[in-house]
Amino acid sequence: MMSPVERAQLAMVLEVCAYPKPGNVDRCHDYADTRLEHFLASTLFARPVFEKAQRQRDPIGALIHEAVERTNVHSGGNTHFGAFLLLIPLIMGDGIEGAKRLVRETTVDDAVEFYRAFGKTDVRVLSGDEIDVSDPLATEEIRRRRMTLYDVMLHSAPNDMVAREWLNGFTLCRRGADLLVAHGCGRQAIVAAFLFLLSTEPDTFIIKKHGTDIARVVMEHAMQVREGIRDIEQFDDECIQNGINPGSIADIIIASIYIALGEGWQWDC
Amino acid sequence: MMSPVERAQLAMVLEVCAYPKPGNVDRCHDYADTRLEHFLASTLFARPVFEKAQRQRDPIGALIHEAVERTNVHSGGNTHFGAFLLLIPLIMGDGIEGAKRLVRETTVDDAVEFYRAFGKTDVRVLSGDEIDVSDPLATEEIRRRRMTLYDVMLHSAPNDMVAREWLNGFTLCRRGADLLVAHGCGRQAIVAAFLFLLSTEPDTFIIKKHGTDIARVVMEHAMQVREGIRDIEQFDDECIQNGINPGSIADIIIASIYIALGEGWQWDC
Repeated sequence: MMSPVERAQLAMVLEVCAYPKPGNVDRCHDYADTRLEHFLASTLFARPVFEKAQRQRDPIGALIHEAVERTNVHSGGNTHFGAFLLLIPLIMGDGIEGAKRLVRETTVDDAVEFYRAFGKTDVRVLSGDEIDVSDPLATEEIRRRRMTLYDVMLHSAPNDMVAREWLNGFTLCRRGADLLVAHGCGRQAIVAAFLFLLSTEPDTFIIKKHGTDIARVVMEHAMQVREGIRDIEQFDDECIQNGINPGSIADIIIASIYIALGEGWQWDC
Repeated sequence: MMSPVERAQLAMVLEVCAYPKPGNVDRCHDYADTRLEHFLASTLFARPVFEKAQRQRDPIGALIHEAVERTNVHSGGNTHFGAFLLLIPLIMGDGIEGAKRLVRETTVDDAVEFYRAFGKTDVRVLSGDEIDVSDPLATEEIRRRRMTLYDVMLHSAPNDMVAREWLNGFTLCRRGADLLVAHGCGRQAIVAAFLFLLSTEPDTFIIKKHGTDIARVVMEHAMQVREGIRDIEQFDDECIQNGINPGSIADIIIASIYIALGEGWQWDC
């Protein structure tokens, strides 16, 4: 019987190893600056934060901040920012229902900690975004407006599918977990769940980096892979070559694996 | 600054991901029954044992037993038995000097625990070995002869290069660490250190499984790769196809990475 901490770490390991997973770092593909080892090292280094989340005594914002600090120690840059945004409330809340309650109860201090963490990552923000995380005045602005971390996610929701999970009750995380079960066990189920979401949801990380048109093409191509009229490895190569990495869907799949493992889904078959 | 526990886990991750690594599970190769994910899951599940080793309060034999039990929970079988034999004393002893002292101080109880652990693995033993670990009488025999775990390693040393490390002061682990530093940083240094040992030391896991002649051919081929007259990927494919996996050298390289990380070797470059 795995602990929630082990489930979270195993989810991160299984997601990054799953192959072929179009566009993202996986077992067989690195990006020049971010490699498989970086993702696995971050998984190891994040553990103390997951343990604190399991003890349910630290505030969400501080834990997200600590997770970013602990995993920002290698040259691979940010690897799991979005995944931490999902896993930490899911661990603290002992599942989706508890997480839904906890995210609504977040405070202004949580928001400030989150912005401090955000400033330490290279996570992409939309140009012209009202609250620029690289701006030292941002936390003052957060306090002035009395924005909680939940409010920050509301603010980000139109452009960020991970933030939307906080508002919609972790809907895609839940769907991903159901897809894993529906597709059987192990690595192939992870690839199938990933492809399903990729074909039905525009990845907001792709939108921020490449725009909506490219995100739509990725969805169409993912659907063609599912329909058997496009080769998955060729699609993967095209994404990698063009720097199109569906990082937000990967974050959601990590949370989905975490949920599914807790419900008895078999990773090992 | 990584803790010894994190160094041990990172060593296990980096070793299994290093590629191309002739004959073993690596980033790009699985065996039918044992896959990359099994090695990574065992790395996560072993952590509580490494933490106990770091606190230096539990006996070596009990920790080896616990490590095997905690990692024997998936279908991949034993993945790290030899690595635990090296890492646990190295963590407990805070390096080679301490480990050398600790292994000499092991007891009959350590030996009994070790045999209990051994009986739970599918680790290969020589037929005709005097003490058959699958025999329930073995632990009685251990007690009757008053064999400590150090004596067991002495008994195993002619046929097992991991056991020899206990007797020779972790010589190959030390050499592997020096090779990592000599070959620079990151994944390529791991492959180079692995190839060096493969070309100069007969892997006792190969000998047990395939005999001395095959082990010698593997050494010659590894030397030809180092000399640039044999292709490493082709050599890798040949080993995989014939089930020739140099598992003992892999265990030693894990310990080498652990030592090197503690001395400032750069895994990330």
